[in-house]
Amino acid sequence: MKIALAQIEVIPGQPDRNTRRILQMVKDAKEQEADIVIFPEMAVPGYFLGDTWEQNAFLKECEECGREIIAASEEIVILFGNVAVDREKKNNDGRVRKYNAFFAAQKGKLIYPDNMPYPFVIKTLMPNYREFDDTRHFFSLQKLARELGTTPAKLISPFSMKIKGQRVRIGALLCEDGWSDNYELTPMSMLKSGGHIDFFVNISSSPYTLGKNERRHKVFSREAAEAGAPLFYVNNTGIQNNGKTVYTFDGSSTVYGAKGDILSCCGEYREELSVIDFEHIESLPPVEVAPQEPTAEICRALLYGIDRFLKSIGLKKVVVGVSGGIDSAVTAALYTKVVGADNVLLINMPSRFNSDTTKNFAKELAENLGCRYMIIPIQDAVDLTINQFETIPVKFLAEGREENFAVSSFAAENIQARDRGARVLAAAAAIFGGGFSCNANKAETTVGYCTLYGDNAGFLAAIADLWKHQVYDIAKYLNTEVFDREVIPQGIIDIVPSAELSAAQNVDEGKGDPLKYPYHDYLFAAFVERWQKATPEDILTWYAAGTLEEELHCAPGTTKKYFADAKEFIADLERWWNQFCGIGVAKRIQSPPVLAVSRRAYGFDHREAQNGAYYTREYKRLKEELLKDL
Amino acid sequence: MKIALAQIEVIPGQPDRNTRRILQMVKDAKEQEADIVIFPEMAVPGYFLGDTWEQNAFLKECEECGREIIAASEEIVILFGNVAVDREKKNNDGRVRKYNAFFAAQKGKLIYPDNMPYPFVIKTLMPNYREFDDTRHFFSLQKLARELGTTPAKLISPFSMKIKGQRVRIGALLCEDGWSDNYELTPMSMLKSGGHIDFFVNISSSPYTLGKNERRHKVFSREAAEAGAPLFYVNNTGIQNNGKTVYTFDGSSTVYGAKGDILSCCGEYREELSVIDFEHIESLPPVEVAPQEPTAEICRALLYGIDRFLKSIGLKKVVVGVSGGIDSAVTAALYTKVVGADNVLLINMPSRFNSDTTKNFAKELAENLGCRYMIIPIQDAVDLTINQFETIPVKFLAEGREENFAVSSFAAENIQARDRGARVLAAAAAIFGGGFSCNANKAETTVGYCTLYGDNAGFLAAIADLWKHQVYDIAKYLNTEVFDREVIPQGIIDIVPSAELSAAQNVDEGKGDPLKYPYHDYLFAAFVERWQKATPEDILTWYAAGTLEEELHCAPGTTKKYFADAKEFIADLERWWNQFCGIGVAKRIQSPPVLAVSRRAYGFDHREAQNGAYYTREYKRLKEELLKDL
Repeated sequence: MKIALAQIEVIPGQPDRNTRRILQMVKDAKEQEADIVIFPEMAVPGYFLGDTWEQNAFLKECEECGREIIAASEEIVILFGNVAVDREKKNNDGRVRKYNAFFAAQKGKLIYPDNMPYPFVIKTLMPNYREFDDTRHFFSLQKLARELGTTPAKLISPFSMKIKGQRVRIGALLCEDGWSDNYELTPMSMLKSGGHIDFFVNISSSPYTLGKNERRHKVFSREAAEAGAPLFYVNNTGIQNNGKTVYTFDGSSTVYGAKGDILSCCGEYREELSVIDFEHIESLPPVEVAPQEPTAEICRALLYGIDRFLKSIGLKKVVVGVSGGIDSAVTAALYTKVVGADNVLLINMPSRFNSDTTKNFAKELAENLGCRYMIIPIQDAVDLTINQFETIPVKFLAEGREENFAVSSFAAENIQARDRGARVLAAAAAIFGGGFSCNANKAETTVGYCTLYGDNAGFLAAIADLWKHQVYDIAKYLNTEVFDREVIPQGIIDIVPSAELSAAQNVDEGKGDPLKYPYHDYLFAAFVERWQKATPEDILTWYAAGTLEEELHCAPGTTKKYFADAKEFIADLERWWNQFCGIGVAKRIQSPPVLAVSRRAYGFDHREAQNGAYYTREYKRLKEELLKDL
Repeated sequence: MKIALAQIEVIPGQPDRNTRRILQMVKDAKEQEADIVIFPEMAVPGYFLGDTWEQNAFLKECEECGREIIAASEEIVILFGNVAVDREKKNNDGRVRKYNAFFAAQKGKLIYPDNMPYPFVIKTLMPNYREFDDTRHFFSLQKLARELGTTPAKLISPFSMKIKGQRVRIGALLCEDGWSDNYELTPMSMLKSGGHIDFFVNISSSPYTLGKNERRHKVFSREAAEAGAPLFYVNNTGIQNNGKTVYTFDGSSTVYGAKGDILSCCGEYREELSVIDFEHIESLPPVEVAPQEPTAEICRALLYGIDRFLKSIGLKKVVVGVSGGIDSAVTAALYTKVVGADNVLLINMPSRFNSDTTKNFAKELAENLGCRYMIIPIQDAVDLTINQFETIPVKFLAEGREENFAVSSFAAENIQARDRGARVLAAAAAIFGGGFSCNANKAETTVGYCTLYGDNAGFLAAIADLWKHQVYDIAKYLNTEVFDREVIPQGIIDIVPSAELSAAQNVDEGKGDPLKYPYHDYLFAAFVERWQKATPEDILTWYAAGTLEEELHCAPGTTKKYFADAKEFIADLERWWNQFCGIGVAKRIQSPPVLAVSRRAYGFDHREAQNGAYYTREYKRLKEELLKDL
């Protein structure tokens, strides 16, 4: 018996295209004499569809596509994920009943466990954290059991079919069903308790996150070993999004042996049909899956994500504003790698505050990458704006009175940033026939250290899930591994990071951003990425206990380096906490979609509310205690 | 026995402030000799907090505040909503266990049903549709029952306490528990089946939606009558948001009698302590709650929402770009009503395409409202931008070659819109010391008929949940009811709506927007507001059957008026469907927060995915059939 893992690229919201791809893969699998072919979870509709799930016509289409796939199972067993609809019943929101379902088709018919009330297997565990929203749309097996007055244990059981004259018992799982550590029930052991199982199949639609594959290998290896049966994990490739956040799907479909070894592993980010001879599966040598270097892993995800996102929205050309700083340089290099130098237009937009140093870096970058290059000075436009506001009167029509405004230097700073983004880059994109990139990193995004409609604008924020130190790592990696030459000038890597929006940010005098990345990168990560998010109370508790650097995973001595005493430390903490909870939220609400790589990306993964900063009573007590000794 | 409904304004994410408010109300209730005082659901933390629920320190603070409230129950029974935490257990996401809980405190102790494993009542039904996200954060009573190996029916029961020497049995419900129509279980009848109940209490945190109160009166009246016991419904006021969408909470706390009559109803959008004499409750005369006129209801929600949102983000001044069109006029009038004319700056920003007609309307509006007024022409800045792009060379550095761009008229249109938004209005806001408004309506927002960083920018989109015909209704209402004089010039109401971005949109020639609002308002509402969202397949089916206008609730003859034949009808349908699913999504991802009034607002209520348009096979078949006869 031969089992084929069909790791296909699923295009979300395009059931017709996905079905054609599935049918082609079925044909390929038959040609390779496979007896069973396995497709990912939600292979027909895609998984992240927003509220498209509420469209009846779309659901009908998915069902029709499903019937076509079932009809193609004459000479091969097809296992695939699709939405299943019961129009006689309702979800708790009053809409038509929908299940996230696992279909098994043989000879044009559906095969399913005896005690299932439907001819398919229903997802039991529904992820409802991070980017997942299963419970909004799908009725779980647990709810169904309650509705039927029975228990999940009575519904969860293997299904069996005859293949080449032999009866085979298969345990079917959908994605989260295999990640049951925090749930009240464990679908795999429930399946196992129903008697002998020849193998398990977990169909998934599992977005890439740094380090997730290693965790999966640990969990799934253990589960296969505990169950004493092989486990076939099939995941899709491609990208899917929920508006504010874009996810890559790396595939990495894997066969785990009955002893927990990894016996086969599909490639990352590419379609693949991998055929396993089941009779000799236990004699397959274990595959050594070496953990990847994080920077290499992230860079790969970024390049793939950018490529697929551009294709999905039909963009071929990209405009990147290049300041001579690190974020824009990395962004420019990534896009150049994806769409080619000829399709990238780099624009340097100096005001009177920009140094020759960074202007030269920008030009050098353009030379190295071979992109089109423009220098569009913004000083005239900025002066025109300031001049209009200082000379055009503000009228009080009823009183026949008028007065004049004065423009502060802070207002002038932001006029510059918006002039670059909304005036120059947006126009350039339209004229060049493409989109313009948002070059924001995660540290800036956390505290809103950016200008709305200025640098915080663009069709995609490709590096907004990277802390500043990760941006530097990617810069070096692009030079040494991707381009194999210094496309990003070393000077850009070495210079102090600066927005160059005022004389106070003069890079030639070593002045730059108010963010001290070797500390703030890690502080902000604690605010947003810790499973239980850290707040000033936690930070101050750790600071007082002398364990802060250990808790944040930043270099020992970091806080001493930046803060003379507790007063300075606390002032800094409150400054950025206020911004994270205040203006940072306001800006993120309107910021471009983020390409996710971390375990917590902005957008739909980290849910926002514009409620302002809060300091607990315990925080205030700690603060008072720390300050009274000064 | 006297029962007090404490309809308080809850500030989300500010447990300390809310607790002080609660304790003050407890004092007031005692002064009014109440025996029981009832506060809303989640009265301590607030309800819409995004992922603040993942902060341990915040949870601890809410618990501490809860203890303070419990301690204040020496001489009065306090019923209130708060988050409850069990640190020994976990949610399904691996985070600390959290319940949406109902606390009953008497003489400093918690009173709870005998068979509850915790000293509080746990919310049973978890809304997970529209703007609600309960299942992401809270463990339901149903899950708890499963975990304990029991059933909800065994856990759900009334609690009893002695008040003035008499034993009173109370049925406790949390918000959705009273809206059980689409769930497998009905908490109210489960409570009732546990024996006699003196009264029910439903503590809620229920956002305002047009028409929701009427539905609630129907449902809750029926439930009280069925149970044969009074039902006290207590809701909060204030605003809460989940980033992209801002909700008002109208309070409207209500007492339903044992026969289903409405016996008492608190005001809308104001704090209130309403004391009911329980002994004589059945002799209270039923209150006639007349359904409000929708425009009046919406206008009230807008004015309240704007007021509270400005306060919550600390803004006192607002800049409104006024084109002489209806959307900006309504927006300007709303803000003027809220913050006063002296705090509003209106700016008219003509280019060469703007008519004297609309320029005069803008001035007239400013005169009528008495706001500060500026005219900032944008032609010079637009010309400067176009000139820069047409004269500054695009360099191919490696080849030593250069070329020049030409600027298309479409690119020039959007340069104008962004010049107004990101250059002028954003700068004006910073200089004036306020924010600037986004004047978009729901029809434009649906199909992205707007410019990102241009008119689709600002700190709040106050009328973006209103269809164009609703904007006109509000305009008339503001003149006749709110200001009691013609602040919005009649000419603005009468003139053809137009963006005036090109000669093709000349209002003096009667030319304007490509949107035919008397049809498109209703078509788009079907795309987004129908409980099962309509798609082109549904639209074409209705069109072919001659039932379209009936289904869309638009005027009979509307389609005939705008489309000569099926070909024109279909071209229009596909144009806007493509935009709704394509560029419309891309723009909404980055658009300002929407103030919600409808049953489906953009932002967090309608979940997005940037996946492009899809046409089902059935749609294609219908289309072919309709076109073959032409």
